[in-house]
Amino acid sequence: MADWDHTPDVRREERLGFDEAVFCAHKRTEQLQRIMDHARDTGRGLLLTRLGADQLAALPEAYRHRIDYDPLSRTGVCDHHQPPMSAPRIALVSAGSSDTAVAAEAVRTLRYYGEACHQIHDVGVAGIWRLLERVEEVRPMPVVIAVAGMDAALPSVLAGLVPGIVIAVPVSTGYGVAAQGHAALNAALSSCAPGLVVVNIDNGYGAACAALRAVRAFGSPVGPTAEDSEGS
Amino acid sequence: MADWDHTPDVRREERLGFDEAVFCAHKRTEQLQRIMDHARDTGRGLLLTRLGADQLAALPEAYRHRIDYDPLSRTGVCDHHQPPMSAPRIALVSAGSSDTAVAAEAVRTLRYYGEACHQIHDVGVAGIWRLLERVEEVRPMPVVIAVAGMDAALPSVLAGLVPGIVIAVPVSTGYGVAAQGHAALNAALSSCAPGLVVVNIDNGYGAACAALRAVRAFGSPVGPTAEDSEGS
Amino acid sequence: MADWDHTPDVRREERLGFDEAVFCAHKRTEQLQRIMDHARDTGRGLLLTRLGADQLAALPEAYRHRIDYDPLSRTGVCDHHQPPMSAPRIALVSAGSSDTAVAAEAVRTLRYYGEACHQIHDVGVAGIWRLLERVEEVRPMPVVIAVAGMDAALPSVLAGLVPGIVIAVPVSTGYGVAAQGHAALNAALSSCAPGLVVVNIDNGYGAACAALRAVRAFGSPVGPTAEDSEGS
Amino acid sequence: MADWDHTPDVRREERLGFDEAVFCAHKRTEQLQRIMDHARDTGRGLLLTRLGADQLAALPEAYRHRIDYDPLSRTGVCDHHQPPMSAPRIALVSAGSSDTAVAAEAVRTLRYYGEACHQIHDVGVAGIWRLLERVEEVRPMPVVIAVAGMDAALPSVLAGLVPGIVIAVPVSTGYGVAAQGHAALNAALSSCAPGLVVVNIDNGYGAACAALRAVRAFGSPVGPTAEDSEGS
Amino acid sequence: MADWDHTPDVRREERLGFDEAVFCAHKRTEQLQRIMDHARDTGRGLLLTRLGADQLAALPEAYRHRIDYDPLSRTGVCDHHQPPMSAPRIALVSAGSSDTAVAAEAVRTLRYYGEACHQIHDVGVAGIWRLLERVEEVRPMPVVIAVAGMDAALPSVLAGLVPGIVIAVPVSTGYGVAAQGHAALNAALSSCAPGLVVVNIDNGYGAACAALRAVRAFGSPVGPTAEDSEGS
Amino acid sequence: MADWDHTPDVRREERLGFDEAVFCAHKRTEQLQRIMDHARDTGRGLLLTRLGADQLAALPEAYRHRIDYDPLSRTGVCDHHQPPMSAPRIALVSAGSSDTAVAAEAVRTLRYYGEACHQIHDVGVAGIWRLLERVEEVRPMPVVIAVAGMDAALPSVLAGLVPGIVIAVPVSTGYGVAAQGHAALNAALSSCAPGLVVVNIDNGYGAACAALRAVRAFGSPVGPTAEDSEGS
Amino acid sequence: MADWDHTPDVRREERLGFDEAVFCAHKRTEQLQRIMDHARDTGRGLLLTRLGADQLAALPEAYRHRIDYDPLSRTGVCDHHQPPMSAPRIALVSAGSSDTAVAAEAVRTLRYYGEACHQIHDVGVAGIWRLLERVEEVRPMPVVIAVAGMDAALPSVLAGLVPGIVIAVPVSTGYGVAAQGHAALNAALSSCAPGLVVVNIDNGYGAACAALRAVRAFGSPVGPTAEDSEGS
Amino acid sequence: MADWDHTPDVRREERLGFDEAVFCAHKRTEQLQRIMDHARDTGRGLLLTRLGADQLAALPEAYRHRIDYDPLSRTGVCDHHQPPMSAPRIALVSAGSSDTAVAAEAVRTLRYYGEACHQIHDVGVAGIWRLLERVEEVRPMPVVIAVAGMDAALPSVLAGLVPGIVIAVPVSTGYGVAAQGHAALNAALSSCAPGLVVVNIDNGYGAACAALRAVRAFGSPVGPTAEDSEGS
Repeated sequence: MADWDHTPDVRREERLGFDEAVFCAHKRTEQLQRIMDHARDTGRGLLLTRLGADQLAALPEAYRHRIDYDPLSRTGVCDHHQPPMSAPRIALVSAGSSDTAVAAEAVRTLRYYGEACHQIHDVGVAGIWRLLERVEEVRPMPVVIAVAGMDAALPSVLAGLVPGIVIAVPVSTGYGVAAQGHAALNAALSSCAPGLVVVNIDNGYGAACAALRAVRAFGSPVGPTAEDSEGS
Repeated sequence: MADWDHTPDVRREERLGFDEAVFCAHKRTEQLQRIMDHARDTGRGLLLTRLGADQLAALPEAYRHRIDYDPLSRTGVCDHHQPPMSAPRIALVSAGSSDTAVAAEAVRTLRYYGEACHQIHDVGVAGIWRLLERVEEVRPMPVVIAVAGMDAALPSVLAGLVPGIVIAVPVSTGYGVAAQGHAALNAALSSCAPGLVVVNIDNGYGAACAALRAVRAFGSPVGPTAEDSEGS
Repeated sequence: MADWDHTPDVRREERLGFDEAVFCAHKRTEQLQRIMDHARDTGRGLLLTRLGADQLAALPEAYRHRIDYDPLSRTGVCDHHQPPMSAPRIALVSAGSSDTAVAAEAVRTLRYYGEACHQIHDVGVAGIWRLLERVEEVRPMPVVIAVAGMDAALPSVLAGLVPGIVIAVPVSTGYGVAAQGHAALNAALSSCAPGLVVVNIDNGYGAACAALRAVRAFGSPVGPTAEDSEGS
Repeated sequence: MADWDHTPDVRREERLGFDEAVFCAHKRTEQLQRIMDHARDTGRGLLLTRLGADQLAALPEAYRHRIDYDPLSRTGVCDHHQPPMSAPRIALVSAGSSDTAVAAEAVRTLRYYGEACHQIHDVGVAGIWRLLERVEEVRPMPVVIAVAGMDAALPSVLAGLVPGIVIAVPVSTGYGVAAQGHAALNAALSSCAPGLVVVNIDNGYGAACAALRAVRAFGSPVGPTAEDSEGS
Repeated sequence: MADWDHTPDVRREERLGFDEAVFCAHKRTEQLQRIMDHARDTGRGLLLTRLGADQLAALPEAYRHRIDYDPLSRTGVCDHHQPPMSAPRIALVSAGSSDTAVAAEAVRTLRYYGEACHQIHDVGVAGIWRLLERVEEVRPMPVVIAVAGMDAALPSVLAGLVPGIVIAVPVSTGYGVAAQGHAALNAALSSCAPGLVVVNIDNGYGAACAALRAVRAFGSPVGPTAEDSEGS
Repeated sequence: MADWDHTPDVRREERLGFDEAVFCAHKRTEQLQRIMDHARDTGRGLLLTRLGADQLAALPEAYRHRIDYDPLSRTGVCDHHQPPMSAPRIALVSAGSSDTAVAAEAVRTLRYYGEACHQIHDVGVAGIWRLLERVEEVRPMPVVIAVAGMDAALPSVLAGLVPGIVIAVPVSTGYGVAAQGHAALNAALSSCAPGLVVVNIDNGYGAACAALRAVRAFGSPVGPTAEDSEGS
Repeated sequence: MADWDHTPDVRREERLGFDEAVFCAHKRTEQLQRIMDHARDTGRGLLLTRLGADQLAALPEAYRHRIDYDPLSRTGVCDHHQPPMSAPRIALVSAGSSDTAVAAEAVRTLRYYGEACHQIHDVGVAGIWRLLERVEEVRPMPVVIAVAGMDAALPSVLAGLVPGIVIAVPVSTGYGVAAQGHAALNAALSSCAPGLVVVNIDNGYGAACAALRAVRAFGSPVGPTAEDSEGS
Repeated sequence: MADWDHTPDVRREERLGFDEAVFCAHKRTEQLQRIMDHARDTGRGLLLTRLGADQLAALPEAYRHRIDYDPLSRTGVCDHHQPPMSAPRIALVSAGSSDTAVAAEAVRTLRYYGEACHQIHDVGVAGIWRLLERVEEVRPMPVVIAVAGMDAALPSVLAGLVPGIVIAVPVSTGYGVAAQGHAALNAALSSCAPGLVVVNIDNGYGAACAALRAVRAFGSPVGPTAEDSEGS
């Protein structure tokens, strides 16, 4: 039934400066195909998020081959010419090795829109020297994405150390009271570090969009030391 | 016992670009006096948040008179020469008349640091024409603070309409499932508008700090209408 | 053991104007068979809801073939002659492509009882122009079913725009704080749009029944475009 | 500061068929006065909900005297000529004597718009004969508001007995697991009676608005005993 | 490691009048074998609860054959000579066909200890005539077990109609707010029917034990009409 | 408005063997007076529960003097000739001195209906010798009410030691995770002692009613004028 | 009624090495008097916790004068000769000025039993240099009590820096998601710092008792006759 | 991508006295291999926790053979020479056979660091004689780990009987309100036994680390039967 079709928000890019990503979780094969058909017909590329490896495998080969897939972040880039990358003005800091999938979703989203990001991983506060040794790399960045599960102390500590916008991404790792990321979410929201902002649990994509809003709202290349970058 | 004294984070300003506000809820009269004494001794002004009218009244007159108090926002400004104000590069949009106390806390915090903000009130989505009529005023602003209680649909709608950073402040108004602001908080966090960021319930101060981080991180003249600004 | 058998509420139709649907989740194959046997013996058709494809497949072929199955809505229609359809006096509006399964359950339930419904999909508030462009199609309908997950802002916005009964169906899509639909449910319940009513999460069947109650309680030809109808 | 003023949704009546009520909880005296001033200036009456006796008492006499106040429901009617009442096409059934304040808010709201309602009180299911003796009075009504706290079994039982739209209003009475009405809310939402719809806890006003939407959407003379009515 | 062995509470029978059942969920095959070995060595029979069909299948045949298994209730009776059955003094009433597994656990537990129970199924309150037609069968029973999921209105209604001890067993059926049985549990606990008592969600075994405590505490065959029974 | 009047469940006594108590929390003075008027007119006594000292004081003297009030349990007995007391067949065991108000509500309720109860207080499990020294006093009782807040370990331990029906009453004492009694409630519901039953938090009245149901359903001479009792 | 009297756990000291404190919240004046009478009669001193200033004021003067009261911690010491203090082997570190009341309860409890404690206050992680500057004072202590509200990152950071037992005390300060201390509690429990242990929200007394258990279990001569102590 | 690599906290041992364990849940095969490579390269052994049997099976044989795996506790010891064991100064007491997996994680962690522990299993409070018979074995131990699910009454009872540090480990067994261990957690946190400390649900590893902190912080020979030990 045609009624169930996807109606893309085609004017989003002109309103917001970036177009609509496709949240693929729970989408059926036919839905994905129709969305990809529509994008090709209108000459648009697509960022696909939460695309399971099984969903990818279920697509016909002609569709599958249009997608540059990353299994860690479960993101796919479809028919999209990645733009040249800016010098990094966004830092991404993560607390532990369980946070990498969420961090990777943010990095892939930023890359899709041509934003490099300076990454520092596995610097959770249980061994705080790891963070303190590298905080000077973070300090000049106007935007910082802080990814952490469990007790999510990392965003609080970071937001007390650096002046840029700090966007906390709680992660659904852990077990017991930590599980599903609610302890991390609530810790980030109740942080006493002033001005820490938060997105939904595991929402690496949302944090990247917030970072994009920031760097774009304030215009062209900024950030005191942004001279180089690293690929994703 | 001196051990219970306040130890101000005196280096916060150099690290973050703004100094520590004093969260006054639950503080006893003597604590407030000691904090005000210490600030005067070190030549610092103070922003006091969540200062109840009864707490103010309990202070000796000499202290009370040093405070410029606003009962709506429950904020006090102590021994502080408000800086001249920039042209606004921050918009503050609120949904209903119950949100004004929280909105006022944000406005007063921004004012303390010399940031004007363009305010639009009472434009909740139950009468969405009110918001649509004024969205063009919001569109050029690089930072938007959206204050809303109950179902908090306003931040979602706004973040779908304007390109700047949108910071949602859930408000603890309402009753039943809405009370204490958790419905608003969860609605904002699960918004499908990309890149919406969120602070704790009723945290007008935190939203203002996040806005400050943004405008300061990106430095001088920014935003279509901003005429002047200040560095960090 | 006969004690565990289904005891259909055979007088429901005379009391309520529509008979009992069979909620199939967790029912075992034998239970389903006995229910279908009983219905055939008493000359009744059946609406089967939450019937998994695996449950269908586990039925003997003779049973399976009596069921008109729709995998999207997981509904089955058994031994039932669908009545001719009225002109639509119910609108169904959904926010995103993840809401289609729940929307389809409502549509199939209404169809079972001969009610057409005017469908508008994928008009979530993150791109509010999509809804505003089509709101005039909804306005004349006396009953509107609004299906939305995540922050469920759609029902609030709709109930502020149209005068009919608006029935919100929260959907269990999303992740983090949105998952399981509680954020959507609470947002709908705490909406500031007056008179919005709500059913359980994912309860497309319940929303359809409420719509049926409305159109039947108020009797014959109603709504600007309704050409025919049936009494209760 | 004029920014904090109330901006009434003046077009609500033309869109929805009834104008905006004023939710007074937490509003300060000056806010209430400004709202009443604005209403008088524009020649509108007002329905005031959740108006505490202390709030009323704090108003200057000239304002206080314009309000017809009911302490049980905490509602006030300001400068409003109550319309003549229709024959009742709405029933209101409540479970216990603790539910009367919420029930009264619904009754007063309906009265404001000229809708009578047939009331049956104190018929909770712990003594189910009380309900069964009177169910025939409810059966012909196209709309039924069912008000109940604690375990809220009344709406479920009612919705299994009568064919009209049944709107459950959970009430925040009780203690322990019942307190604040969440047990009642969840019981109503998970009722197995088909088509029961629910509003927020204690939301008598919302239930009345939903009932108004129903009777107005379906237009004039309806319901077996309704003798007269009014359009929307 | 012998340390992980089961230490049966062998004196429970003398203290409580019935011995310890074995809660099998999560137990590994070896644990089950050791428990069955120990029981045989000490000449005791065993009631096994929450024994999955897959757990049964994983046992060596010699063990499997000692167990009288019921897949609906997931109970097994091992090496136990079922005592002759008393006339029923316990009624078990259930609301819907989804409640049968939990009801069956209670029935099997009672049967293990020689207690018959008078069963009435599928009499949920959405069609309350079903319950009212049969309430006279329940009235003479000194103990009533009421099994219900979703909104669990059945135990409330029953406890208002009959004078015996009514033990509510909430069931984890349903979805949305009902899922996992918490709505049912809270409804039962906050019932306004006086003296209703409650056990954990899905705890058919616990309800049966409570019934056993009652009938045994008060001595030998009682109950006004207990003359006949039905087997399980 | 007469509609808001109390409609007593006058047939409750014949159905259940005890009449309806009046839950006074939130009732206004006039409501209480009308209820007392009605009781006098129909020649009935009344048990008043959750009657605040301030509510009592607000009653006119003529009413106040009809009430035998106990401030600890907040219960009042109105126009009731307490029946002679039976020998105790119910034990009441409480864990700490914070549990006495709830325990007293149970004791007063039992006394109203002529049931004595054997009381043992302040025997919480943190000093388990206190319970063990007195367990033989509890063992012969067919019904045991166990009142405990915080972690509510007492009912579990008791139900493992004595064969009678054990009714746990969780108490809303404590702070942090214990506050409002949910930790106690959940601990009691998930007890591994078989057959423990539970009532709502602080529901001493409900536990007493359950005990009454038990002793009356089984014991010979029961009803309001029980003159003697029996052992187990 | 004597039944409601306090039964002190008089053998607690011989079992645990410290006697029972009196948790005074919700205790009535007479209860407190009886407890103090009993203590004097048996020659014991008393530690009173959660004793409100109003409760103290309500006591007759003869009782009041026996109590050394501290309003910050709401503790009272009654008829107790404080033992000479050991060199400190316990550190107490707190995050903010809102945590002092809870910290003071711990300090007063330790002092009651002759344990000094090394205190460091107002070193929350939003300005982490404050903690890092003083961590060497904490490192040699075998036991560390870490008191923190809001996001409670302090205990995590501390437990990653020092080798002793770290006991986290979550504090119920803050608002929104932080309120009542659950965010702090869950953060502490899900900390990735290994071996952090936690007590209930605001339970300064409990943390002190845990510290006492530690220093007494290990340090030489401990138990009721502790005469001296040891350094770190 | 190298960025996602594990950055071991190599200085943890010098800070805390024990090195970092590897929490394997959710880690992919390549991550585990890199961690094992790094450990071999730096000459360190590894304790692997939450290592699923399927994760182990997915490792190449060369890796798998370096791991001493225990399926009950899901722990692996890699390239580690277990130190000689001390005489036990830690007791581990568990309530039921469902708690053994969590208990085993604690025992394996202690063994890794050379700490013996005295184990007592299956002594839950439903048959409290089992615990009382063995309490004298626990009394002399300075540290006690108490593992219990469901209502977790065991830690409370134990902490009232023995003077050492008692560390409660709530276990996620059970169903209904007990499931996921939150009832057990909250019961342990709200215990009225003074000084009980708690770790996260199922966190046997954390309890062992806390015990290690205790025995090491207090240094050499301690506990009545400890023959040898090691300093920190």
